[in-house]
Amino acid sequence: MIYVIFAIFLAACFAAGSTGGLFPPGDWYARLKKPWWTPPNWLFPAAWTILYLCMATAGARVAMSPDNALAMALWALQIALNGLWTPVFFGLRRMGLGLVVLGALWLSVAATLVALWQVDTIAGLLFVPYLVWVSVAGALNLSVLRLNPDVAR
Amino acid sequence: MIYVIFAIFLAACFAAGSTGGLFPPGDWYARLKKPWWTPPNWLFPAAWTILYLCMATAGARVAMSPDNALAMALWALQIALNGLWTPVFFGLRRMGLGLVVLGALWLSVAATLVALWQVDTIAGLLFVPYLVWVSVAGALNLSVLRLNPDVAR
Repeated sequence: MIYVIFAIFLAACFAAGSTGGLFPPGDWYARLKKPWWTPPNWLFPAAWTILYLCMATAGARVAMSPDNALAMALWALQIALNGLWTPVFFGLRRMGLGLVVLGALWLSVAATLVALWQVDTIAGLLFVPYLVWVSVAGALNLSVLRLNPDVAR
Repeated sequence: MIYVIFAIFLAACFAAGSTGGLFPPGDWYARLKKPWWTPPNWLFPAAWTILYLCMATAGARVAMSPDNALAMALWALQIALNGLWTPVFFGLRRMGLGLVVLGALWLSVAATLVALWQVDTIAGLLFVPYLVWVSVAGALNLSVLRLNPDVAR
């Protein structure tokens, strides 16, 4: 049963992540000024694949546990926000609104991490890399917004 | 506690639904040939607001219940797919891919309805209007795709 639950959570992750393929960075992003510590493009899908496996594992472990209401509600919230950033940033090219979405995503991921941890320590730990990566993404979004005032909106 | 859980599920709904404001139908949609039974534009946000209240209530009721793993995983999947359709259809204007997303959304909503019902009958019933509305949206997407072969892709 836990493998079915894991597969459904993983499908939710890839549904959100499919926005990455649908709204690719393209020339617009390539031409933006970026900070020196910007991760290379190939790292993003690789990192997200690992994060999705961690997120789905955490979701499945806690779904199978009692007293999971808060964690399950927050897991749903963070995946809805996760799928929102790429269409806003790469689709609409609205960097400022993208930063707002990332801020909301960061808060929801942090809250989910704490709620998962209260049910299952391993599930909470599995959300740590995700929170780190969203922090990096937020710093990158902020830097790009500041470095490109001419195209920022 | 159930009100906090309800509010978080409702926030997830509005995160997915915010794509409706970010990728508005606009002139492109207005100029498309549409079937005679197309609902008026004002009905969409009104219907979604009611559906979100039903979806969040169903989510909160089942989150507070035992043996909710399958229902909670599916609730997360359907909200991730829910937020995907508008960027695909109105953002990318890819009607064919939009129909694929709606098909996946329909299946996930139907599965969530059944899984919710097994835990809590009222929660299952609260997903019935959602499934009906996604069926209407799917029929509309298919009709628009067929009526506008010149712009369909």
